[in-house]
Amino acid sequence: MQRPRALSEVSWDQLQAMSLAEKALSFQKNGRLFHVLIAQQFDRRQLEELGATATRVRQIAKSKAGMDFLRAQLSHKTAMLYFTQPSSRTFLSFHSACQMLGMKTVEVRDTATSSEVKGETQEDSVRTFSSFSDVIVMRSAVGGLAEKMAWVLSNAERPVPIVNAGSGKDQHPTQALLDIYTLQRSFERRGGIDRKTIVFVGDLLRGRTVRSLSQLLTKFEGVKQYFIAPEPLQIGKDILDLLRASGSDFEVGADFEKVMPEADAIYMTRIQDEWDEQKGDSRKIDISRFSLAAEHLKRLKPHAVILHPLPRRQEIAVEVDHDPRAVYWRQVRNGMWIRVALLTFIFDCADSIREFHGA
Amino acid sequence: MQRPRALSEVSWDQLQAMSLAEKALSFQKNGRLFHVLIAQQFDRRQLEELGATATRVRQIAKSKAGMDFLRAQLSHKTAMLYFTQPSSRTFLSFHSACQMLGMKTVEVRDTATSSEVKGETQEDSVRTFSSFSDVIVMRSAVGGLAEKMAWVLSNAERPVPIVNAGSGKDQHPTQALLDIYTLQRSFERRGGIDRKTIVFVGDLLRGRTVRSLSQLLTKFEGVKQYFIAPEPLQIGKDILDLLRASGSDFEVGADFEKVMPEADAIYMTRIQDEWDEQKGDSRKIDISRFSLAAEHLKRLKPHAVILHPLPRRQEIAVEVDHDPRAVYWRQVRNGMWIRVALLTFIFDCADSIREFHGA
Amino acid sequence: MQRPRALSEVSWDQLQAMSLAEKALSFQKNGRLFHVLIAQQFDRRQLEELGATATRVRQIAKSKAGMDFLRAQLSHKTAMLYFTQPSSRTFLSFHSACQMLGMKTVEVRDTATSSEVKGETQEDSVRTFSSFSDVIVMRSAVGGLAEKMAWVLSNAERPVPIVNAGSGKDQHPTQALLDIYTLQRSFERRGGIDRKTIVFVGDLLRGRTVRSLSQLLTKFEGVKQYFIAPEPLQIGKDILDLLRASGSDFEVGADFEKVMPEADAIYMTRIQDEWDEQKGDSRKIDISRFSLAAEHLKRLKPHAVILHPLPRRQEIAVEVDHDPRAVYWRQVRNGMWIRVALLTFIFDCADSIREFHGA
Repeated sequence: MQRPRALSEVSWDQLQAMSLAEKALSFQKNGRLFHVLIAQQFDRRQLEELGATATRVRQIAKSKAGMDFLRAQLSHKTAMLYFTQPSSRTFLSFHSACQMLGMKTVEVRDTATSSEVKGETQEDSVRTFSSFSDVIVMRSAVGGLAEKMAWVLSNAERPVPIVNAGSGKDQHPTQALLDIYTLQRSFERRGGIDRKTIVFVGDLLRGRTVRSLSQLLTKFEGVKQYFIAPEPLQIGKDILDLLRASGSDFEVGADFEKVMPEADAIYMTRIQDEWDEQKGDSRKIDISRFSLAAEHLKRLKPHAVILHPLPRRQEIAVEVDHDPRAVYWRQVRNGMWIRVALLTFIFDCADSIREFHGA
Repeated sequence: MQRPRALSEVSWDQLQAMSLAEKALSFQKNGRLFHVLIAQQFDRRQLEELGATATRVRQIAKSKAGMDFLRAQLSHKTAMLYFTQPSSRTFLSFHSACQMLGMKTVEVRDTATSSEVKGETQEDSVRTFSSFSDVIVMRSAVGGLAEKMAWVLSNAERPVPIVNAGSGKDQHPTQALLDIYTLQRSFERRGGIDRKTIVFVGDLLRGRTVRSLSQLLTKFEGVKQYFIAPEPLQIGKDILDLLRASGSDFEVGADFEKVMPEADAIYMTRIQDEWDEQKGDSRKIDISRFSLAAEHLKRLKPHAVILHPLPRRQEIAVEVDHDPRAVYWRQVRNGMWIRVALLTFIFDCADSIREFHGA
Repeated sequence: MQRPRALSEVSWDQLQAMSLAEKALSFQKNGRLFHVLIAQQFDRRQLEELGATATRVRQIAKSKAGMDFLRAQLSHKTAMLYFTQPSSRTFLSFHSACQMLGMKTVEVRDTATSSEVKGETQEDSVRTFSSFSDVIVMRSAVGGLAEKMAWVLSNAERPVPIVNAGSGKDQHPTQALLDIYTLQRSFERRGGIDRKTIVFVGDLLRGRTVRSLSQLLTKFEGVKQYFIAPEPLQIGKDILDLLRASGSDFEVGADFEKVMPEADAIYMTRIQDEWDEQKGDSRKIDISRFSLAAEHLKRLKPHAVILHPLPRRQEIAVEVDHDPRAVYWRQVRNGMWIRVALLTFIFDCADSIREFHGA
């Protein structure tokens, strides 16, 4: 293999032609995590280190002394939260993560009110915004925008890392990281994620969460994946091809009740009807058998866990919330911890976190 | 009386059936202030302590050393400002109060851009938001929402206090607290609020401020209250019944000029025509005699004070601003001080504030 | 000359009748910078001191220790960013400047959601906002609003400084300051701004930036100014009269290519068609000869610099960005540094900055 090429050394077309492994290297800087753009850029070792750091941060944050220590880490840095696609949940999670490390934050929410109106290109806008920050956390409805911007800025006088907080239909890497972290925590005392059975349920076609997580699970050993969905919302063939190529074990089906007793983790998702080609298309699909009700709980393993990226509709009954196996509320907090961990890697203070003894 | 019941122990219906005294206890946690939901939950001792703390904070805040001390108090805490009903004034006041104690803040202003759109229940939304904060300051057009959310969260894994910053037509407890504090400060050297005469003027029917303050005044001794309003905007019978039940002295009338010389405090209010059933209804009412003009100033006692919750329209002439008895601008700042005091009680650092010697 | 009169001592009409020199003095407080309202209030000595402080801050900010020092300077102060006219660029610059000094910030963006709706005067609104802050940074489409508010607040119990961040078509003083600072930095080793040739190009009629900067340049010695624009967008006669009155050297023309070799600095601007009386008017003007293309670079002096207030459209080709003489991206950061410097003058901590030895 050739020397890894930096983003600033390649053309946009060359970047698109790179293999995942090459891309992952080009997102680094001086051998360290820089841009966070796609879930698959993380290898297993990095996933383990991120999880360990997140857990360490979680413990440190329990005391005021620990919080004050954390807030001193990046008190000299500013994060730009560029969220042109609305999302309170992801926004709040990143915002909290930044604040926990003492970072200042500044928000751009509505590009319509900004200089784009005055005829500026998006490249110029983002480059301007980068002048006022040390990292840009970017969420956009435009697929690939985060990657494009990382590439554009790589030639600027003052390049800053870009963290993809969801772009287009495909990528939402930090959601995948928080899901992995939730599984890591859930299986902490039972051998980790290796050899576990994960059941995905719901709208698997359009949930970018499932697509990313499913690929990351191939980095663990012997994981079995079930995809349980109504036919028109079943997971994409591209993902199944990737699983096959990596030699992963999986099954595609529609009988949720049957696989319940096998699951170590059940990953529920809602119908993403905001992507319907014709408004109302989804309503024609029978989704009644893809929900988790209180009476199903007795069919689950005693240590199984129930995840959901939230927001939910009716696919998980509210009564399920009280079951100790329901971890989706904890999953929300995990998102914050893993994002803190990510920032400590980007800004190279993970070691300092690891060595903290005050808590 | 039975052992006080915690919010997490009662059903929503049981909560609604509780007496005010029982409710007040259920809003506490470990015998300490937790939720701030209704003005009447505060007893006289608490009102005095809050006022004393607000005054202490005000003095400490005069120096940079004092400000730095204050900002260190809650530097490990985050406040969620959930303001789905717009209000710059109350928002800014809470925001400033949080910042003064070093709290981080995060805002939710427009629920339309958030996950509610994706079919999430409001309970789930608020529970999610609670994951990222240590207190939720909530303003909503929906009556009782703050109380409902406090109850919902009481059974969550990580309940956080709710502070009602105005919900629906009825409750705006922190406005009542700041009014009480303004009266405490104004009468500091003249025996406090006991035995003073307070004149309420304007739209007394729909001003939730007056309704709350009027009830809180019954906790002091021998206060006389005048309600001066045009007939269709006169104070509600329910309030008068409560005053009667508590043995308070009051009079209802329409002759403002006549009672001016008796007033120790005049509380002016604007016509709240945003609540008109038919747009323009209020304009049919003659309000000309319910304003305070410069020529009225000579009729007031030399130590009388003039309050107004702001914003004002024409009910106080701008020339009155220059009279030393006009305290409504100071009232704005008092709102900030009393909210700081409230937060120090919720987070149990009022003692530390009281013992500060650096200022 | 008479004793300088304070803002609180004059009527609004008297203020309007003052000379620039008298105005400049009235904007001070105790002989120190207080309000920042018009570019011309600064004299050469102040411009030099601001620039020197900006450079010092820029150096201090390179280290974490330096950043922590800066953030401690105004940690007890709060800035209100009152931006009712949208501008991400200026907003972000001020926001960053405030945060760099540790100031808390609070934003008012949309007055429609605030109490103005309830019938409050703008004077009352701003006075209320001033209760929660130590400085108001104000951007508004209303010409003269910042000056008006400074005057209104001067009689309040707690006056706070107003910084004009752009009001109406005429004034945008901090943009002029950042332009001066960019020229100071660019000519640092070549004798400063004195005796340099500055070429303004584009829409000179409606760019408030050019109007302000042009006047500030008269405070330096022997500066020659070229105004290169299509006839209908040529600089206003009022500015030319001021230049003549100050004995400044200038030329008006339309041949950009001819003056290129003479320029020490080229200041490009975009067509401001948002001010068109009839939408589309500007499109009828031939602007093809008022752009800077890659092939022009060889005509420039080796040390010439290219400025642009941004956002740009097509008037500077993207390829020009890579030329070391293109300083417009650096200009963006300069805006932040000069605003930090300005705040240190307003809050009297410029000396402390100057004496810092930790960096």
